[in-house]
Amino acid sequence: MDIGVGVIGAGTVGGGVIEILSANTDVIEDKTGARVALRHVAELRQDLLKDLSLNGATVSNDALALIQDPAVHVVCELIGGMEPAKRFILAALNAGKHVVTANKMLLAKCGQELAEAAIKNNVQLRFEAAVAGAVPIIKALREGLAANHIHSIHGILNGTCNYILSRMTYEGLEFEETLQQAIAKGFAETPPDLDILGHDTAHKCQILASLAYSTRVSLDEIPVEGITKITHLDVAYAREMGYIIKLLAIIRKVEGEIEARVHPTLVPETHLLASVRNEFNGIYVESDCADATLYYGRGAGRMPTASAVVADIVDIALRGECRALPPFVYTHDIAVRDIGLMEGRYYLRLTTEDHPGVLGQVCTTLGRHGVSIASCIQKSQSEDTPVHVVLMTHETIESGVVAALAEIDQMDFITEPTQLLRAL
Amino acid sequence: MDIGVGVIGAGTVGGGVIEILSANTDVIEDKTGARVALRHVAELRQDLLKDLSLNGATVSNDALALIQDPAVHVVCELIGGMEPAKRFILAALNAGKHVVTANKMLLAKCGQELAEAAIKNNVQLRFEAAVAGAVPIIKALREGLAANHIHSIHGILNGTCNYILSRMTYEGLEFEETLQQAIAKGFAETPPDLDILGHDTAHKCQILASLAYSTRVSLDEIPVEGITKITHLDVAYAREMGYIIKLLAIIRKVEGEIEARVHPTLVPETHLLASVRNEFNGIYVESDCADATLYYGRGAGRMPTASAVVADIVDIALRGECRALPPFVYTHDIAVRDIGLMEGRYYLRLTTEDHPGVLGQVCTTLGRHGVSIASCIQKSQSEDTPVHVVLMTHETIESGVVAALAEIDQMDFITEPTQLLRAL
Repeated sequence: MDIGVGVIGAGTVGGGVIEILSANTDVIEDKTGARVALRHVAELRQDLLKDLSLNGATVSNDALALIQDPAVHVVCELIGGMEPAKRFILAALNAGKHVVTANKMLLAKCGQELAEAAIKNNVQLRFEAAVAGAVPIIKALREGLAANHIHSIHGILNGTCNYILSRMTYEGLEFEETLQQAIAKGFAETPPDLDILGHDTAHKCQILASLAYSTRVSLDEIPVEGITKITHLDVAYAREMGYIIKLLAIIRKVEGEIEARVHPTLVPETHLLASVRNEFNGIYVESDCADATLYYGRGAGRMPTASAVVADIVDIALRGECRALPPFVYTHDIAVRDIGLMEGRYYLRLTTEDHPGVLGQVCTTLGRHGVSIASCIQKSQSEDTPVHVVLMTHETIESGVVAALAEIDQMDFITEPTQLLRAL
Repeated sequence: MDIGVGVIGAGTVGGGVIEILSANTDVIEDKTGARVALRHVAELRQDLLKDLSLNGATVSNDALALIQDPAVHVVCELIGGMEPAKRFILAALNAGKHVVTANKMLLAKCGQELAEAAIKNNVQLRFEAAVAGAVPIIKALREGLAANHIHSIHGILNGTCNYILSRMTYEGLEFEETLQQAIAKGFAETPPDLDILGHDTAHKCQILASLAYSTRVSLDEIPVEGITKITHLDVAYAREMGYIIKLLAIIRKVEGEIEARVHPTLVPETHLLASVRNEFNGIYVESDCADATLYYGRGAGRMPTASAVVADIVDIALRGECRALPPFVYTHDIAVRDIGLMEGRYYLRLTTEDHPGVLGQVCTTLGRHGVSIASCIQKSQSEDTPVHVVLMTHETIESGVVAALAEIDQMDFITEPTQLLRAL
């Protein structure tokens, strides 16, 4: 069966999809028997098209004309952002066209509305490229692990943040310096806020949590911390204690509720996720039958993301006529757990004047809130400058740590707010 | 659509499939909408069934009766080995039943014959569990990477060998000692020959090579070396030079031919595959669009393998009525490259009397065959005992190394055949 493809947006990813549909149809047909062909490209900036092989496809600057084009069976929305992307996807679904998108923000915010439109119109809405680019994590979760109850997902889902933290870890650089490198290398958007503040990871966290537990998860319920507060000292102290700092999306089922959160996390250096370096993504999934599995690859970039978009097109070509998985299923309505209830180990970096008795007062206060200390680093520095005391707690409840720090940060020898990071 | 499942063989994996079909149908239906139900179990040793929930399924000791049972839509062959497994699978396909199997040896030896029977009868033959257990590598190669030309696959595909090598690496044990541990822990079959001699890995190598390049690869064309000749000294010397020894299946396209081979390999310790430890499997795939991806998980064991079998059943349930990927495609007929043509770096451990001039003679001979040395370790030992000289070569051609060693091993100061290992 020949499947006609329409591409809305010929930028980075859209251009990659057009390249694959020009260069790699041989291997697609070899491996799957599917024949997919570019039929229509809608792009406002026609200069983007000048180096691309369009193989006679229609070119327009009108996405709605593309959607109505009878030669187009699958519409790829690759312009990103909220509007007009949402309007185009809904128009395509309502016109009976299958849709492939890489738009994680839109899915995280409006996934349910889009899924309902797809189901109503009996067409597919697919989004493998929206989470971890070339890594087939959506397929793994829904199909490869179909028989499993998911215990937990720990994901490195933003290449920019992982690149920055890797350079800080292995080259001892400061945050701002590596951010500028990432921008220069094209890993980071300008401005990079969605990446470094953790929101891009939260969008992907929302999508994976919804899929893993067949439940509605509101983006607003996911606590998010980015990596802007991480210093090279934190990276170095963490390493000294055997940890690598990574920005993780963490999704777990705990006592019938879901934990879904995004924050910098101290990962033991022997854990596989600690080996996921530079701009790569990695997702570690634990489930009841398969046990631990990990999926690794490039989470962004022109061709890796386009590879995932085309994989979705091929799946639609092979399975468009038969029953498909709905985009999202909301069988359950499971509450998102308050982060204060979270249990774990905590890294605390205190900045304090170098007096006798400081450690005693701090530990007494922590102890009063049920927090006990597993290890401690204190670096001697030159006299009269504040010193860092780094504590790693035993397993404890987050609300206790937060309450203790509220008191500690008021003590007169504490010269800066204490840095709190969570450990895996 | 309700899909009836028949399980031939209720041993380790078959028992796991029965458990999942009893305990996890809720999550399967939640995530996919598919309803799968156990209808028939055929097992000669009925005592294996006594702790399993059969939910009213028919029990027989007759696989052919199971195949003919009209309540059975999907037949799972989980007895392993060549016969009668092959006869049962062919009978099922010819009876118009879909088949799921974990039988890598049978697929590696008779994949084409089985694929032809499936295609002729317009039914599916699926085998996700045959390679790397719970890791969805078949799905990743055929579907996730459908748009990609595969450059190379490097796979740790045998948990027993990886467990043994990991213990040798991290605990300094000898081969025989760790083999006995692996047998005691139930990771190794008795006898363990298929595992430790590399043949099990070769079976999986054959399957992955066929899928990656849509070509016939004969099992006999795959050079195979196991891990029995690896000593703890090799492991230690390799580590000293920054490498971890792993048994790899290596599949690459080189100058229009396919390299497909299985042998112990020195993997740089910074490579992700070096972090795949103990009984886990990992597959590192490089391709033109997606670039590097890695898939990791348990390659064996009751529930992980059963997880993959049930994933295939669910896929059939969702897609049984529509066009499916054929089990194997043989569009091409690409030659398997002679291993003598292989280019790479080589680890050579010479055992020699401690004379002056030994290293000179060895290096001169290597040089005459175009082999130059990148690094060297020589350990001083007590007098009058042979010493080890370990050489790592620069990139060179295997036939040159082999020819040089044929001469070197005849030299009168060489007291044992030289150990040759390949590096990644």
